[in-house]
Amino acid sequence: MTEPRHDLAHLGHVELLTAKPDESLRFFVDVMGMTESGRDRDSVYLRGWDDYEFHTLKLTASHTSGVGHVAFRTWSPEALDRRIHELEAMGAGLGWVDGDLGHGRAYRARNADGHVFELYYDTRWYEPPPELRPALKNQAQRYPARGCNVRRIDHLNLLVVDVAETRHFLERGMGMRTTEMIVLDSGVEAGAWVTCTNKTYDIAFTKDHTGTPGRFHHVTYAVDSREDILRAADIFLEHGVHIETGPHKHAVQQTFFLYVYEPGGNRVEIACAGARLMLAPDWKPIIWTQAERAKGQAWGLKTVESFHTHGTPPVA
Amino acid sequence: MTEPRHDLAHLGHVELLTAKPDESLRFFVDVMGMTESGRDRDSVYLRGWDDYEFHTLKLTASHTSGVGHVAFRTWSPEALDRRIHELEAMGAGLGWVDGDLGHGRAYRARNADGHVFELYYDTRWYEPPPELRPALKNQAQRYPARGCNVRRIDHLNLLVVDVAETRHFLERGMGMRTTEMIVLDSGVEAGAWVTCTNKTYDIAFTKDHTGTPGRFHHVTYAVDSREDILRAADIFLEHGVHIETGPHKHAVQQTFFLYVYEPGGNRVEIACAGARLMLAPDWKPIIWTQAERAKGQAWGLKTVESFHTHGTPPVA
Amino acid sequence: MTEPRHDLAHLGHVELLTAKPDESLRFFVDVMGMTESGRDRDSVYLRGWDDYEFHTLKLTASHTSGVGHVAFRTWSPEALDRRIHELEAMGAGLGWVDGDLGHGRAYRARNADGHVFELYYDTRWYEPPPELRPALKNQAQRYPARGCNVRRIDHLNLLVVDVAETRHFLERGMGMRTTEMIVLDSGVEAGAWVTCTNKTYDIAFTKDHTGTPGRFHHVTYAVDSREDILRAADIFLEHGVHIETGPHKHAVQQTFFLYVYEPGGNRVEIACAGARLMLAPDWKPIIWTQAERAKGQAWGLKTVESFHTHGTPPVA
Amino acid sequence: MTEPRHDLAHLGHVELLTAKPDESLRFFVDVMGMTESGRDRDSVYLRGWDDYEFHTLKLTASHTSGVGHVAFRTWSPEALDRRIHELEAMGAGLGWVDGDLGHGRAYRARNADGHVFELYYDTRWYEPPPELRPALKNQAQRYPARGCNVRRIDHLNLLVVDVAETRHFLERGMGMRTTEMIVLDSGVEAGAWVTCTNKTYDIAFTKDHTGTPGRFHHVTYAVDSREDILRAADIFLEHGVHIETGPHKHAVQQTFFLYVYEPGGNRVEIACAGARLMLAPDWKPIIWTQAERAKGQAWGLKTVESFHTHGTPPVA
Repeated sequence: MTEPRHDLAHLGHVELLTAKPDESLRFFVDVMGMTESGRDRDSVYLRGWDDYEFHTLKLTASHTSGVGHVAFRTWSPEALDRRIHELEAMGAGLGWVDGDLGHGRAYRARNADGHVFELYYDTRWYEPPPELRPALKNQAQRYPARGCNVRRIDHLNLLVVDVAETRHFLERGMGMRTTEMIVLDSGVEAGAWVTCTNKTYDIAFTKDHTGTPGRFHHVTYAVDSREDILRAADIFLEHGVHIETGPHKHAVQQTFFLYVYEPGGNRVEIACAGARLMLAPDWKPIIWTQAERAKGQAWGLKTVESFHTHGTPPVA
Repeated sequence: MTEPRHDLAHLGHVELLTAKPDESLRFFVDVMGMTESGRDRDSVYLRGWDDYEFHTLKLTASHTSGVGHVAFRTWSPEALDRRIHELEAMGAGLGWVDGDLGHGRAYRARNADGHVFELYYDTRWYEPPPELRPALKNQAQRYPARGCNVRRIDHLNLLVVDVAETRHFLERGMGMRTTEMIVLDSGVEAGAWVTCTNKTYDIAFTKDHTGTPGRFHHVTYAVDSREDILRAADIFLEHGVHIETGPHKHAVQQTFFLYVYEPGGNRVEIACAGARLMLAPDWKPIIWTQAERAKGQAWGLKTVESFHTHGTPPVA
Repeated sequence: MTEPRHDLAHLGHVELLTAKPDESLRFFVDVMGMTESGRDRDSVYLRGWDDYEFHTLKLTASHTSGVGHVAFRTWSPEALDRRIHELEAMGAGLGWVDGDLGHGRAYRARNADGHVFELYYDTRWYEPPPELRPALKNQAQRYPARGCNVRRIDHLNLLVVDVAETRHFLERGMGMRTTEMIVLDSGVEAGAWVTCTNKTYDIAFTKDHTGTPGRFHHVTYAVDSREDILRAADIFLEHGVHIETGPHKHAVQQTFFLYVYEPGGNRVEIACAGARLMLAPDWKPIIWTQAERAKGQAWGLKTVESFHTHGTPPVA
Repeated sequence: MTEPRHDLAHLGHVELLTAKPDESLRFFVDVMGMTESGRDRDSVYLRGWDDYEFHTLKLTASHTSGVGHVAFRTWSPEALDRRIHELEAMGAGLGWVDGDLGHGRAYRARNADGHVFELYYDTRWYEPPPELRPALKNQAQRYPARGCNVRRIDHLNLLVVDVAETRHFLERGMGMRTTEMIVLDSGVEAGAWVTCTNKTYDIAFTKDHTGTPGRFHHVTYAVDSREDILRAADIFLEHGVHIETGPHKHAVQQTFFLYVYEPGGNRVEIACAGARLMLAPDWKPIIWTQAERAKGQAWGLKTVESFHTHGTPPVA
């Protein structure tokens, strides 16, 4: 059918790899203000104070940095079946895995870069212990009042060898929609932002200039206000966390952003979209040109070089 | 199928009636900071600076106040057909109308109160004149920097005789989902908040204690920050606009709110939800009890009496 | 000389009495986000993260609640001498005390209510331990990122039997200036706000309707933004702290306010004045009438009854 | 006497020169949101919505850009006499001028660069016309709800050939206090921030690398929140105003800043200091080293080259 599908409900979680698991854990708990909900083997499960699931970040000890896998929850069991059928028809399917502390069995697929995506419907809702019960019953957990107090996972950004290929994988395979893109004068796609919700993007991906497949650019947590992000910058400064760029406003998607590196080397963003939503069902992707990108960010900040080169794992 | 549907894309617009059309227009343009996109016969078409459609508010001169009709845009033409089929099966259908300056033909239906709902897919995108073209191409219009600068329509609230009936109408007929409810000790439903997007509600409705069918409670426009709402309160004060209650935070839905009366007597809200979204496809409605409601709003503000009694048109 | 004096530099600290010293201490440290800098005998010394002195709050265990003493630092040793001369000429002087952990010897005086005021010049600058050293050398201490993160002491409010008498005591005895007042139709003064800085007030005092001398109304800590106060309200809610009124904007002085009761029963305010300052050397006091006060606060919030009646210690 | 003096009350106004008077006026009124209070000959008098005097900015048509004069109001007539005595003793006095629409006679003095300073006590309070009367009587004017809505003048920054000389002129001649400084490894002073109020600085001056005497760096208006500055950046972007740098946080003084060029070429800043005040009477100036300055601004933003080179009038 030509009618746009609505099979994915939202970004579920991202698995981050780190060679400094203790320092990374301290960063996410003490500085970002996230809550640990459990651990098994080499992984610790973490979440923002209003994430409804057991976890939105799986932090896994590894010999290096980067992304383990990315997971989306489907809208229904039927929606999951439709996606599997489509992914297998594309030859992108990898088959089922058992799931972990945070959710039931999940179906895995991959793009040409080899980034691993999981789709699942059976999940585990977070149940706060007594000391973390919120005062208002329509909130997942008590507000921590610690560090940056990130509210919920927002999106992630991957580095890919072929932007057009990953866009096709997410549009056809996952049933997502592209809202904004960067297309170079050569016609080559340099980046794309796609969504499966009313957020203007749930995942973005940009061209890896090193040509290395499967790398990670950043994961983003949302806060309620731009003021929260300005304060987060103070907190990162006080904790000696490397601030790469921001706070500033992106021209693309107009997101107010702040980028830092967690101890394991992975880039982490805290962002606020204000009241901006993607409501039009027939939105035509915004195409940004090379000349427009050269202008820098919304208010004129030049994009720092490392933003184009730093990815995880680092290129040997 | 038991699978939840996704047939409505978003709240499209609300038609407000006013016996003081000139004063009401000045309020929406000068104080709220909205933009007029056109007028015909007795109506003026208005929108917030980031509303993508031709209008989200149709202000119509009338002998009294209240709501003319409420319109939702569907996700696709097929989705519109599915809704019509369901509404007619329920006996709630009223048939087609031609549409107006803002959109093409629309199908009308009604709840037991007789509130008129329109469903349409064919719409008219707003095209800003040269002086209102935005600096960033992913924005509908230039930021006005005038008055309260409301960004986009957010939701509306209707007064109904039978909350359960309207909830059934919106859930079955419109394919919407209920996220929060108020249920009295008697078991009678006193209010419900339903959504067709990732916003936690697109329409709410509360019991009309006067038993008068078809009345209107308020329409709400969203701004990017709570700070914008605090400033809006200053602006309403300077313009002699009656502030009914707020700024404060609702316990239900946790929306930061500010309610005023426009010159025609209709209640208007400016609200900010922060980063709160409804992402879970299997969210179970939060039920608020009489005792919980008696506690007042989130931070303890008692709900003002007029919030329970004032609706439009006024009861003779 | 008729030339206005500038002998007081700023409000130094307030001594609060509490019959629940442990709970009160937890409130100020964990919820307010203040830092303990020392303790002796029955007192704990506390400060906000940007207070430059050793302490701005002296919390003293007692059989009841209320204020122990209020201290102002003078502009110079000569200024202190001038004040003592004036206070003794008024018959308000009480003589010297040795000081405590936070400052050197101080001269004590009292108003007719018997509220004890200390004047001192010799002070102790706060020296942060290594783990609390700030990233920026022009800041007193590292930003705590805990609880409400109050920045600095702002002002206090006393309940007095005779507003005119205390105003005379502060104007002549302390060399302070009155910026705003409430005068009843009877001509009786009901409240006054006086300053010794460019803040629009450093101390306020309102008529004690019970006629009980020497009681305390509240002490206030400042934060950088109104958004900080909205978040503080969430944090108080989560911690079960009683929110008396706010967040809202005062008509008098236009301060954005939030009032709570600490465990010992004393009222505490978190406030933000924005960029408002008292710069005019010849400012004429603003006089608020009974009718103007009856309108409630800036945006229409009615003043809660307890705000007029609750003081510490409670009236037997 | 060694006791610090308090003879200046506050920065009164700055006279800016522009070769594009009409465009500059439109910028200050429409974009900055300032109010015109009068005009005579080649000048237009402007102010922010809470400036209590007739004007804080005198915009004068000229063949070039730069600063005409800088004026401070004294604390009293006696204070003005004391300053004149000191300035004449230093050989820095220039004698009396008649004043203009905004204030009575004023005494002029100059630093070695030849920047002209005026001192006055007799001033003209702003009296709003009926349509600009505020809702609250403790406010100078109605909130405009237009453009950036700047509240009040905050400070200015001059380029000087010899920083130490101007610092001496302001400390001895004007009785001001230095709160922060930049001292190069060579021992040469590169910049200083001095105050005559509880603001941490009312005037700053930095070394002119071109060695040209008498140039202007920027004038600054204050807003109530950092959010106001983020929105101002959107407004400047929409109006095609050149944003030089920011929004970001200075390491020196920790001011949240945004710098733009008005049509005449003069640099204008919108700033917010939060609740930061200079309360200590014995504050020791913070000395920033070359190495510390090389780190850039508070959150790591590198200082743009033009910030060191662009001044008005431009160097031929």
